[in-house]
Amino acid sequence: MARLLYELCGIEDALRFSPFCWRIRYALAHKGLEAETRPWRFTEKEALAFARHDKVPVLVDGDEVVTDSYNIMRYLDHHYPEAPLLGEGMAETRARFFNHYAERTLAPAILRIIMKDLLCAIHPADRAYFRRNREKRLGCTLEAFHAPAQGLDQLNAALEPLRGQLKTSPFLDGQAPAGADYLLFGHFMWARCASNADLLAESDPVHDWHARMLDLHGGLGRNARRIRDVGAV
Amino acid sequence: MARLLYELCGIEDALRFSPFCWRIRYALAHKGLEAETRPWRFTEKEALAFARHDKVPVLVDGDEVVTDSYNIMRYLDHHYPEAPLLGEGMAETRARFFNHYAERTLAPAILRIIMKDLLCAIHPADRAYFRRNREKRLGCTLEAFHAPAQGLDQLNAALEPLRGQLKTSPFLDGQAPAGADYLLFGHFMWARCASNADLLAESDPVHDWHARMLDLHGGLGRNARRIRDVGAV
Repeated sequence: MARLLYELCGIEDALRFSPFCWRIRYALAHKGLEAETRPWRFTEKEALAFARHDKVPVLVDGDEVVTDSYNIMRYLDHHYPEAPLLGEGMAETRARFFNHYAERTLAPAILRIIMKDLLCAIHPADRAYFRRNREKRLGCTLEAFHAPAQGLDQLNAALEPLRGQLKTSPFLDGQAPAGADYLLFGHFMWARCASNADLLAESDPVHDWHARMLDLHGGLGRNARRIRDVGAV
Repeated sequence: MARLLYELCGIEDALRFSPFCWRIRYALAHKGLEAETRPWRFTEKEALAFARHDKVPVLVDGDEVVTDSYNIMRYLDHHYPEAPLLGEGMAETRARFFNHYAERTLAPAILRIIMKDLLCAIHPADRAYFRRNREKRLGCTLEAFHAPAQGLDQLNAALEPLRGQLKTSPFLDGQAPAGADYLLFGHFMWARCASNADLLAESDPVHDWHARMLDLHGGLGRNARRIRDVGAV
């Protein structure tokens, strides 16, 4: 197999919850491309030295080494143009907004909800690194950042534009899912795999989209291993 | 002149602050199309009976009558395809997200900041209608909704994806402005024309985008009449 995807793993090799890696799992499935996945931990920086990068996802596609989830999606569109993910021109520029919206609006809201669970899902060898790195970025302790009720409020407000979009089509990108859906759904897979928290009320139109996304590509998301499958942590 | 745009006016005919009408002012300028504008007040429903609609903007373009700002932008793209606003396919579907983001995320935040000013900017004949209609929609009095500090907090959080987008290009739609920029900027023109409130710190990258948007099309936004030009209200 010439295609290899390095993915973050947690307390088990099979527990994969990186939102950015989930984007690429879905992107590959969207294109009908197979890839072997390789588990990686935050502290295994030397294992990515070949890519001159220190984060996953890293995609090795034959002789090509591609880093950063958005870049990988662009790469896939250029090399496998059928079934576009981001598209070109105006479509691609607007896809970037979904990328920022996921990272800057959805991610902080979800992180407030799942922080404590996430820390338990991370491999013990990675926890000190994760704490040091994230506390520096957040400007407070992980425990101070953890505020599920506030996070749910933030998330509820943040989802308003999605609710509008989903009034007229089943996916954010229209009748069929594409890049905008995957860019956002990665963060929902993050919460699903690393935490037991419920993010969405069943009455929320985003809940129905979430269910459709889980079912895509043969239940790619729905069948993923979750922290609740791992047993007592 | 065969092209006519019905626009909301306030205490003066020349005071135009509807965010949805501003989208169309910019959209027409983007296409290089001229239009005569006609002032309209909330309570002048019968003046729009010909359009079978009760809100502005209404565009009359020769024999065509088009309502709703997003629809008008689509209409302009179909009839005047040069210099696309929304584009087609994936680009157009993603433009809808900007529409929802403006209406459901930006608008409520800005309205909390400008509500009291806005009420003063509205024509006296319209104020009872505006109060009745908006209090029903908001579920509280206008005075209870007015909460500028909270609105500024909401707006500051809501602008995060824009800040990300503007790191790599001067406009939301890339090197040149297009539909995504106009869909959002309409609400900034609303605040600018109806209120004296400052929405953006000078250090905010969104402030620079805002300045560029004001300067477009010969200073279309910068030269617009504002409530501060009207004098004591």
